[in-house]
Amino acid sequence: MWGFAKEDKDIMPKQLIECIPNFSEGRRADVIEAILKPFRERKGCGLLDYRADDDHNRLVVSLVGIPGPIEGALLAASKVAISNIDMERHQGGHPRVGAVDVIPFVPLRDITMEECVEYARRFGRRYHEDTGVPVYFYEEAALRPERKGLEVIRKGQYEVLKAEITKPERHPDVGEPKLHPSAGATVIGARKFLIAFNVNLGTKDVQVAEEIAKALRSSSGGLAHVKGIGLALESRGLVQVSMNIVDFEKNALYRVLELVRMEARRWGVPVVETEIYGMVPAAALLASASYYMQIAGFDPNQMLELRLLQMLTDEVA
Amino acid sequence: MWGFAKEDKDIMPKQLIECIPNFSEGRRADVIEAILKPFRERKGCGLLDYRADDDHNRLVVSLVGIPGPIEGALLAASKVAISNIDMERHQGGHPRVGAVDVIPFVPLRDITMEECVEYARRFGRRYHEDTGVPVYFYEEAALRPERKGLEVIRKGQYEVLKAEITKPERHPDVGEPKLHPSAGATVIGARKFLIAFNVNLGTKDVQVAEEIAKALRSSSGGLAHVKGIGLALESRGLVQVSMNIVDFEKNALYRVLELVRMEARRWGVPVVETEIYGMVPAAALLASASYYMQIAGFDPNQMLELRLLQMLTDEVA
Repeated sequence: MWGFAKEDKDIMPKQLIECIPNFSEGRRADVIEAILKPFRERKGCGLLDYRADDDHNRLVVSLVGIPGPIEGALLAASKVAISNIDMERHQGGHPRVGAVDVIPFVPLRDITMEECVEYARRFGRRYHEDTGVPVYFYEEAALRPERKGLEVIRKGQYEVLKAEITKPERHPDVGEPKLHPSAGATVIGARKFLIAFNVNLGTKDVQVAEEIAKALRSSSGGLAHVKGIGLALESRGLVQVSMNIVDFEKNALYRVLELVRMEARRWGVPVVETEIYGMVPAAALLASASYYMQIAGFDPNQMLELRLLQMLTDEVA
Repeated sequence: MWGFAKEDKDIMPKQLIECIPNFSEGRRADVIEAILKPFRERKGCGLLDYRADDDHNRLVVSLVGIPGPIEGALLAASKVAISNIDMERHQGGHPRVGAVDVIPFVPLRDITMEECVEYARRFGRRYHEDTGVPVYFYEEAALRPERKGLEVIRKGQYEVLKAEITKPERHPDVGEPKLHPSAGATVIGARKFLIAFNVNLGTKDVQVAEEIAKALRSSSGGLAHVKGIGLALESRGLVQVSMNIVDFEKNALYRVLELVRMEARRWGVPVVETEIYGMVPAAALLASASYYMQIAGFDPNQMLELRLLQMLTDEVA
């Protein structure tokens, strides 16, 4: 683990990023563990959280750390994923185009979005050199304006992209216009802190989840900075509105949830539970707690742990 | 400020306590600032938070730190309060018996409740020696079982205690049975982490707040581990149910709030806002956020800041 100790000025993480690689494997425990290994072992790369999901057949990893070490661990983990995942046989409820599906970099501390974009593009080129997998750049790192949106790049998923990659408008940003035979393609980018928020509904009718997702997401006229799809959770007999809150400061979690609850009432369908996937900043939960509890003038520094964290980082600043 | 740096083993806070002294001054800015000064300056004593309130005419300070330095800062601040506050002329909406009204010590890390009790009693004897103010011990530090409850010691407040202190059942635990002529008495103890939670109601009828407080607090049959009084917020034209959640793990904030909302409906009175006074542990807000948002299986370590805090303290452990 990396340190903040005062005397370790040389290894002090001046720049801190978050990175949330998504791998197309949510079922085989041994493969999942092999992918995670480099993140666990690399000094300077902290494994914050990971979630493997059966229905999505997807592994979402949250890392925090120094850019250099994160890059090394990512390359090692990607190689494990590429040699173990065959996209020709992959099935799962979540859209995907590759074994290493998406790698977003998020600026956390002492690093600008511009630096993060530059870092993402440099990493993308090196990733392609090392693995042969074609790369698309998205969000802030997009080289073509229409590729800001992940859904544009992933349109039709692996199966369709395989046929359409030869069309100029679907050519990758790095590499030949041809998918890797088993690992597909990888989408790499830089973006703001994103919250993955799922709402599970008490029905087996996936159309309900799809309709609600449509009402919610900005692309079809819903809430700005919200993306969403409806999918079935076969193993649980539920459906899910699976959302990404792209800017939680502009559209808070409680507003998203209350809108889902409101739309669900149209079908008499109950919200069974919600799920925060991966990491969430304290501010996002505090905003929602404050709404529901009508807390006036709450200062995040009233939270004991945040205050202690600030004291500790002041101490080593 | 105290440090956690690896190399500073000698000053590493093996024991960490919270201390929340309450002073009977919420109006005069210069006196408030003079009371706070020792807390700001003392190494090893971290001033987490303070709130001065006009209606309560009370200053609530939250400290975290090492027992020794906290003791020194407390004695210095208390002397400022004692020489500036005259209980003969003090008025305010909150029950009180002294200029330095209550000093609870709360175990946070590497210290047991038993050690905290011993520390509180030792501090109480030294405080009396230095100031001449009689001391009562309460909660876990109580020497008489009936004094576990703060409300028993403060019954009738300063004005009544002044007359009744000569009765054996109201004798102080330290000092002669006689109030300090201007500073009254001080109640010192050890207890669990307590959350001060106020709910402001949209009415001027203080009886509504009193009735709701009665329905809520354990002493009159409400929720266990909840204390509460009703009071008027004259300056705002509102009334307040002012509560202490003595064990937030057993009765969560959301449950307390929903019961207040339920009782308030009897009078058609709306909850205007709520207030968390002083510090609150992350777990308390997470429990309520999870309730309102139906979040399933949330791990506190998914909160970015808590995970960073853990990484930092692991690092120096």
